[in-house]
Amino acid sequence: MSVTAAKGFRAAGVAAGLKASGRPDVALVVNDGTGAAAAVFTTNRVKAAPVLLSQSVVAGGTVRAVVLNSGGANACTGKPGYDDAVATARHVAVALGCASTEVAVASTGLIGVRLPMDLLLPGISSAAAALSASKGPDAAEAICTTDTVLKQTSVVLPSGVTIGGMAKGAGMLAPALATMLVVVTTDAQASSEDLAAALRPATSRTFDRLDVDGCMSTNDMVLLMASGSSGVSLTQGNERWAEFTAGVAAVCADLARQLAADAEGASKLITVTVSGAVSEDDAVEVARAIARSALLKCAIHGEDANWGRVLAAAGTTTADFDPDHVDVSFNGVLLCAGGIEAGDRAAGAEALKPRDVLILVDLHAGEATASVLTSDLTAEYVHENSAYST
Amino acid sequence: MSVTAAKGFRAAGVAAGLKASGRPDVALVVNDGTGAAAAVFTTNRVKAAPVLLSQSVVAGGTVRAVVLNSGGANACTGKPGYDDAVATARHVAVALGCASTEVAVASTGLIGVRLPMDLLLPGISSAAAALSASKGPDAAEAICTTDTVLKQTSVVLPSGVTIGGMAKGAGMLAPALATMLVVVTTDAQASSEDLAAALRPATSRTFDRLDVDGCMSTNDMVLLMASGSSGVSLTQGNERWAEFTAGVAAVCADLARQLAADAEGASKLITVTVSGAVSEDDAVEVARAIARSALLKCAIHGEDANWGRVLAAAGTTTADFDPDHVDVSFNGVLLCAGGIEAGDRAAGAEALKPRDVLILVDLHAGEATASVLTSDLTAEYVHENSAYST
Repeated sequence: MSVTAAKGFRAAGVAAGLKASGRPDVALVVNDGTGAAAAVFTTNRVKAAPVLLSQSVVAGGTVRAVVLNSGGANACTGKPGYDDAVATARHVAVALGCASTEVAVASTGLIGVRLPMDLLLPGISSAAAALSASKGPDAAEAICTTDTVLKQTSVVLPSGVTIGGMAKGAGMLAPALATMLVVVTTDAQASSEDLAAALRPATSRTFDRLDVDGCMSTNDMVLLMASGSSGVSLTQGNERWAEFTAGVAAVCADLARQLAADAEGASKLITVTVSGAVSEDDAVEVARAIARSALLKCAIHGEDANWGRVLAAAGTTTADFDPDHVDVSFNGVLLCAGGIEAGDRAAGAEALKPRDVLILVDLHAGEATASVLTSDLTAEYVHENSAYST
Repeated sequence: MSVTAAKGFRAAGVAAGLKASGRPDVALVVNDGTGAAAAVFTTNRVKAAPVLLSQSVVAGGTVRAVVLNSGGANACTGKPGYDDAVATARHVAVALGCASTEVAVASTGLIGVRLPMDLLLPGISSAAAALSASKGPDAAEAICTTDTVLKQTSVVLPSGVTIGGMAKGAGMLAPALATMLVVVTTDAQASSEDLAAALRPATSRTFDRLDVDGCMSTNDMVLLMASGSSGVSLTQGNERWAEFTAGVAAVCADLARQLAADAEGASKLITVTVSGAVSEDDAVEVARAIARSALLKCAIHGEDANWGRVLAAAGTTTADFDPDHVDVSFNGVLLCAGGIEAGDRAAGAEALKPRDVLILVDLHAGEATASVLTSDLTAEYVHENSAYST
């Protein structure tokens, strides 16, 4: 159930003093196997130093370790910040006896301030000394910022391959709330190229369809590392490949759901499912527009069956559908049929009482379906984000 | 200072009982002059019945009157709702002795419910009986929903032409918060075609650059009506045309600012000005992305000089600029220069104390500048929009 569930990985999480609270803030995950890896990074043009560095590390094809810190994003810090990220990777490399070009770095926290290297480097030494195959949960704790629970998962495939992972934040690659950092580990034996082929479709249907507040981070990273320790060799097209890609997708989906459920200030986990679309792209566009509607997110928070806000959001898209043919239901209660009121708002309000809310929108235009996860908009969200850097 | 400031217009506002509160909810504005008119409507594909009707009325070239109601949007109400809008226009036409095809209709309130015609039609009769050249303020009051103040304005041009107007809501044509209804009147003598030529550029740089919560309404309308009563004839290209278009733009800008200042739950009026852009489109794209950042709007609410959220938002755009060359200041306090921290966050926080906040972003890429108006994101916004339809 953690980033060390798969064989061949060790991890640690320690408190280096980057967080004023004294909570753990430096995580280290080490691949004792092949070092094969793939990653997906934020598409924001303003990229944090660790993202720029890790992109080149992953491009090199081998990732022996990833070091992650909370307590500072190391974004908008210029050349000095980039040098800090390089020094961070070098310090890990020395501690582990690997090349610094094989160490990925990830950071999360406030944008625009330098990391306290005098605290971070000793913290890395402590983390390296504490590495253990049982300390995945420590690493998961050390990457938390406003997270209220640890996000971890694992699956064991019929082939004997294990895939595990951890995540922090609540967001997606584009857009994202605060920073999303995800590390997925597997003991499958696979090349970096094959890992990339497995990771991209998984993230595009999971983390990319998580939309908490439409804000895109400068620091997002999803890293998939393989140790090969299971001895099970996987390549694109071989008989167990489909099982493996499904496993990676399942781990990503589980972590994405945990992220949405713990979104800042959220009291509802909302799944917007659009069916009857002409294409999957259309379904995603409509679902995302609905998931981003601040007015709708407020209504769901207030358990108000205000389905008109669903149609108003759908109407802003270029998707192919006729507004007069749209059906909308909230948790199974049909409220709008053929674009006009069809149900009882009181029953709709009753249906919104559970924490999990499914908004189902049938466009009646085609066969494609897609879902986007989001949360409600609450006064607590405003409070958390008004006081973040103070 | 009202929609009846220009000669040749009468108005009224009455309580018809559409609002449970018993507040005024039906407004009528009558053009006793030429009936020339132009309008801009929401670009939402889900258009309310009154929008669909008014589009055809305005296309006809003559608008003798506009009737506006709060207490119900008449959106997503299908054919019966459209028939209600037609019946509304007919009732006004009978009361005034004009053609029903010369009566525009506007509605605001909850989406998806039919209007209580048994209350609305008698209300229209009362409004018609109360029409007066001094009752612009009554009309402005009757179109309010969550508005806390009346929004009215007027200017007198050197030529002797007066332009006045009223507005409700806080939003823009694309996108919009709740519904924005605007009626601008003038006693200039101008054709409907010329009025359209004056209105479009004015709205595109005012209401279109107001972004409270990124939500687009089904009901937005900006209507410009001319009576000709000043006897001053204006046509595109004549000597007073530039003065007139500037006057229309000034009236729109004033009303847009009043809308932003009274945005739901807002405690700050935020102007995001982007300079040094390669093109005005680039400047608008970046300013809008910043104005839409929920994280930044929370930070401003908390008087937190979190300039990193400005860069993170700018980085999501396709505008032509180098993130390493961007400067950011809050109310004149430089916080970021060349993409990295340049100032004192405590001084930045102090600078955020006033209600009016200017976020100035210099892209250092070109000569173009544009501004977008928005407000902060507050717990009150969440509260108002969680409980709207209940």
